[in-house]
Amino acid sequence: MKLSTRNQLKGTIKKIDGNEITSEVLIDVGGQEMCAVITTGSVKRLELAIGDRVRALVKATSVMVLKE
Amino acid sequence: MKLSTRNQLKGTIKKIDGNEITSEVLIDVGGQEMCAVITTGSVKRLELAIGDRVRALVKATSVMVLKE
Amino acid sequence: MKLSTRNQLKGTIKKIDGNEITSEVLIDVGGQEMCAVITTGSVKRLELAIGDRVRALVKATSVMVLKE
Amino acid sequence: MKLSTRNQLKGTIKKIDGNEITSEVLIDVGGQEMCAVITTGSVKRLELAIGDRVRALVKATSVMVLKE
Amino acid sequence: MKLSTRNQLKGTIKKIDGNEITSEVLIDVGGQEMCAVITTGSVKRLELAIGDRVRALVKATSVMVLKE
Amino acid sequence: MKLSTRNQLKGTIKKIDGNEITSEVLIDVGGQEMCAVITTGSVKRLELAIGDRVRALVKATSVMVLKE
Repeated sequence: MKLSTRNQLKGTIKKIDGNEITSEVLIDVGGQEMCAVITTGSVKRLELAIGDRVRALVKATSVMVLKE
Repeated sequence: MKLSTRNQLKGTIKKIDGNEITSEVLIDVGGQEMCAVITTGSVKRLELAIGDRVRALVKATSVMVLKE
Repeated sequence: MKLSTRNQLKGTIKKIDGNEITSEVLIDVGGQEMCAVITTGSVKRLELAIGDRVRALVKATSVMVLKE
Repeated sequence: MKLSTRNQLKGTIKKIDGNEITSEVLIDVGGQEMCAVITTGSVKRLELAIGDRVRALVKATSVMVLKE
Repeated sequence: MKLSTRNQLKGTIKKIDGNEITSEVLIDVGGQEMCAVITTGSVKRLELAIGDRVRALVKATSVMVLKE
Repeated sequence: MKLSTRNQLKGTIKKIDGNEITSEVLIDVGGQEMCAVITTGSVKRLELAIGDRVRALVKATSVMVLKE
């Protein structure tokens, strides 16, 4: 199974909060934190839990660049 | 200046390719690669170049989770 | 600090509603209303309040066109 | 015909550039500029041209907030 | 009225759930299910109800491809 | 392997066009057409070709609703 999604960052879930519709999943990616807002339906379907090894997926067209 | 954008991953530009409209910027983020598709207008306006220290920004609602 | 994000519309916050996960921020942009759905975590971190002068940011690939 | 899309900003097309796949449409929205990247197929199908009165549509979940 | 949005899938609403900010709308599209997360404000403004004939709109840049 | 992405529409590729950066992939989904704009890099990496059985993936927050 192959995905066109260009960004597939390996990480570990460190926190999950949610209400009945949307949930916020915090993922540690090599020491940097990522936040995914997904449906609570998906949190349940994937049985996501703290400590899970996951990939944070992001389509390339959704990435912006900030230059300091 | 503060941004609502939850994901701000620090990295270094390692490659830029583009045509007159869109460009693909590859960013090394702690050993993992990210790909941003942005307008070539923005590449020029920010004077992006290989080696630049940047942040890859992603809105939390654009992040998906893959569980292996 | 420079952002690749092409759309940066100046406006003023006129209403904020939210639950524990997501919030809806209404912004007056030159007499037209914009609505941003962001995490409530960001509303708190940026200490957003009615009357704040802000910019509504939108990536160019997220804009569609309707012709009447 | 009604759209769930919360952001529908009225404006006028002032420039169109493109290649065979993607095009960049610049829209004047009350004196502020918006940039939409859409497929060139849509530019042709809608017969978009400079001077056209259009609406720039943006889903609320695609809007971020920057506070200065 | 013409939309640049390339994906306009015809379907029928089969379920709506929501809280005060966001709602989840399930749409049957030719036997396959689609899920839209939109603001509850839009659900009310469009008076969406089970059985409504609607179109699920998706910008082409938001579509990814999975190959099995 | 499980994905949080709520929309996974089964279809068949019927056309691929592209330049060096972005490509447009047309997918037949039960008689309705979907268009995905992805990087040409992904088209090559997945070796996408006409006739391939694929899934068109769309995050629920990227779906809008149009009511006629």
